[in-house]
Amino acid sequence: MLAVALAVTLGAAQAATPSQTTISPKSIDAATQLRERALNDDTGYKVVESLTTEVGPRMAGSEADARAVAWAQAKFKQLGFDRVWTEPVTFPKWERRSESAQVLGDHSQKLAVTALGGSPGGTIEGEVVRFADLASLQAAPAGSLAGKIAFIDHEMERAKDGSGYGMGSRIRSAGPSAAIRAGAAAYMMRSAGTDSHRNPHTGITHFDDGLAPIPSAALAAPDAEQLARLVALGKPVRVKLALDCGWNGTATSYNVIGEMRGRSKPDEVVVIGGHLDSWDLGTGAIDDGAGVAIAMGAGKLIGDMKQRPARTIRVVAFANEEQGLFGGRAYGEKHVADVRKHQIGAESDFGAGRVYAFSTSAPDYAKDAAKQIADVLAPLGIAYTPGEGGPGPDVGPFAANGLAWAALRQDGTDYFDFHHTPDDTLDKIDPKALAQNVAAYAVFAYLAADAQGDFGSKPGKVTPPHE
Amino acid sequence: MLAVALAVTLGAAQAATPSQTTISPKSIDAATQLRERALNDDTGYKVVESLTTEVGPRMAGSEADARAVAWAQAKFKQLGFDRVWTEPVTFPKWERRSESAQVLGDHSQKLAVTALGGSPGGTIEGEVVRFADLASLQAAPAGSLAGKIAFIDHEMERAKDGSGYGMGSRIRSAGPSAAIRAGAAAYMMRSAGTDSHRNPHTGITHFDDGLAPIPSAALAAPDAEQLARLVALGKPVRVKLALDCGWNGTATSYNVIGEMRGRSKPDEVVVIGGHLDSWDLGTGAIDDGAGVAIAMGAGKLIGDMKQRPARTIRVVAFANEEQGLFGGRAYGEKHVADVRKHQIGAESDFGAGRVYAFSTSAPDYAKDAAKQIADVLAPLGIAYTPGEGGPGPDVGPFAANGLAWAALRQDGTDYFDFHHTPDDTLDKIDPKALAQNVAAYAVFAYLAADAQGDFGSKPGKVTPPHE
Repeated sequence: MLAVALAVTLGAAQAATPSQTTISPKSIDAATQLRERALNDDTGYKVVESLTTEVGPRMAGSEADARAVAWAQAKFKQLGFDRVWTEPVTFPKWERRSESAQVLGDHSQKLAVTALGGSPGGTIEGEVVRFADLASLQAAPAGSLAGKIAFIDHEMERAKDGSGYGMGSRIRSAGPSAAIRAGAAAYMMRSAGTDSHRNPHTGITHFDDGLAPIPSAALAAPDAEQLARLVALGKPVRVKLALDCGWNGTATSYNVIGEMRGRSKPDEVVVIGGHLDSWDLGTGAIDDGAGVAIAMGAGKLIGDMKQRPARTIRVVAFANEEQGLFGGRAYGEKHVADVRKHQIGAESDFGAGRVYAFSTSAPDYAKDAAKQIADVLAPLGIAYTPGEGGPGPDVGPFAANGLAWAALRQDGTDYFDFHHTPDDTLDKIDPKALAQNVAAYAVFAYLAADAQGDFGSKPGKVTPPHE
Repeated sequence: MLAVALAVTLGAAQAATPSQTTISPKSIDAATQLRERALNDDTGYKVVESLTTEVGPRMAGSEADARAVAWAQAKFKQLGFDRVWTEPVTFPKWERRSESAQVLGDHSQKLAVTALGGSPGGTIEGEVVRFADLASLQAAPAGSLAGKIAFIDHEMERAKDGSGYGMGSRIRSAGPSAAIRAGAAAYMMRSAGTDSHRNPHTGITHFDDGLAPIPSAALAAPDAEQLARLVALGKPVRVKLALDCGWNGTATSYNVIGEMRGRSKPDEVVVIGGHLDSWDLGTGAIDDGAGVAIAMGAGKLIGDMKQRPARTIRVVAFANEEQGLFGGRAYGEKHVADVRKHQIGAESDFGAGRVYAFSTSAPDYAKDAAKQIADVLAPLGIAYTPGEGGPGPDVGPFAANGLAWAALRQDGTDYFDFHHTPDDTLDKIDPKALAQNVAAYAVFAYLAADAQGDFGSKPGKVTPPHE
């Protein structure tokens, strides 16, 4: 009841012209101590170790996904969160059963391949036609690839900010439809990744309305190079692609939510999180066990403070991010009427590399407060980069409906070496880098939760993402 | 006929006390030019590109192995070798059909696993018992592992000279028999490798006489760590290991041999080579397409010289090294009576890293000549390390029967990241490093072939390998 009364009061206050948002010196001191404590704390690493070991791969809708939901509830409780609950998320269920590819004929050999998420099953034998990029395939005349296998051989660029994934993911999402329009019987792409291992990168794809989906898969980088060399020999190269996978009804999973209650405005929340589901090939350590662990770890450290921040810290382990932001969309839809109660949101979903940049969607009246947060983050090697970044994927749908957001951008130089591959395993996480992330999220969440004033959350799309 | 007459004369000369072996200044000059030419030549890289692309994986006795034999004959001819022939090698044939492993129960998840060569097939469900090392398993009492799966969790050490593989390969070869003696139903090991990817390392294993073989497999490093963490949770961990593989009759493959004829003593030969077979998981680029390419490339460059060396350069692409040095043993047995006609031998079978050390089995009267060779190798960054190294694996059996040998030791720091895994592919080879290898082999082979006097080949085990 208290919570409701406070909310009504606050709602009235926020409807007026907002005054300057500020953070007290006492809060800054507390956040500084919190930062140092977090750097020497291994809660985050232990959380991701537990999730990736005890649950392992947890594709949305699978039996393991259900175990992950139970794990998250138990872990929140074990970490001392005051309130733990779930919110259902329903989505189409996609299954991977088996997959293989083989060069036929004089150069017979296997290729390391994985189905793209959403691909139908099927066994196709056809001649491979190589395209250097998406535009070339999109320019192929209708019918020109009848019975053939379209192959886009684009090498994704390595970048700290992951910008190479823009083209990489476009090739994954738009390539199959382009192949279908040219008449192809199947689609293959060089993985959207930056490594050179025999571990192909999966990821969701998409078929435009009105097109009949075709088997669509990604080759490991060495296999894409091998196929390109075989094609370059000048004789037709035939490949057999055999995928057993596809959509199979619907499934319900859950956003799992834990709260550390605020001391004076408990019905207002700072939302941080990661997504609980993973692809099935690896154990989802960097994508996104790390994000769940960073948010849980930050929440735990704030919960342990002698004096909690004014507002509540809400940690969300989102359901089914990988196949279409289902958890993030469900959260945004369910809570849109409460947008003003959401102080600000941020999701960690870019691996376990160190945070190197901080920014927010803060309007002018909250920019000083954002700068105050940035100053406490600076000793972690984090630059203040206003005007850059954007909300994490699962925060995105709510941000599009008025949620203020913060970006704690991570160094993704190596992220796409492992992303969506069997190699996304715990050993790829540096515990010290993870602790730096926990420290950054703890500082940000604490200070945002203890600020006087808000960061601009209100109904409507107030602050478009910068990227 | 000429060759036979020369051989008789030479045989008589070598029976007397050998005089000092020397190399002429003219030979040194020619080798120096050869070295520089080789550094700027891409023959070696093109050879390994052709083998790994056009044939791909080529496990001994497989259809692809037969293609590799045809490829090698054609490649020798294409490179201008004067004489090309094959010598049959017969061996038991082992086949890999499928393999998988899965943790059962509350933490159900797949493990990346591969059968060890020589393993029988079988599906075993059992509790995993972890051992930190081979000695611990060997100390397990008889019957103590009844129905269980023995798991050795040793992490192989990284070393430039590959010395960590000593223990790694012992665990692979001796572990299964130790497991059987303790009553185990199956055997698993952390791969003998230095990487952290989901690509397990295969390799031949062995079962002691009188023991009934059990399914035996290697886990990828991240999977071994995962299994160790699961065991450390303190409850029994059950795994299902399903291997479909085993011995299947015998097969005949071939040592493929090409010669560049010497100008004045053509029946005497310097033998260099690599092995043509590979494991089936990768395309056998570093193991041992590189060795075949280095030897073929060196032979080609020597063959192209305006003045050939006195003796013949014989390049051997050995059959079935991986499953027991069958090609090397067959060559040694077939040619043992001609040991004196073999000036010296060297095999490249340690990847494609740069050669950093040179040594030989040369007796005292040939040490000055060895030093002369070392002086021409020195600008390649190669140290002269007399008393170290040993013959390559396929030269080993013949060296044990009197063949003089040279070691051109390669930097193997990264070799065991890829060795015997799906990741042994062309992209792991640095073309410049490969050219350095070709230059080293060309210099060595040319100077040994043009020396006045011999390097100590004679019947009997004259010079034990240093390692």
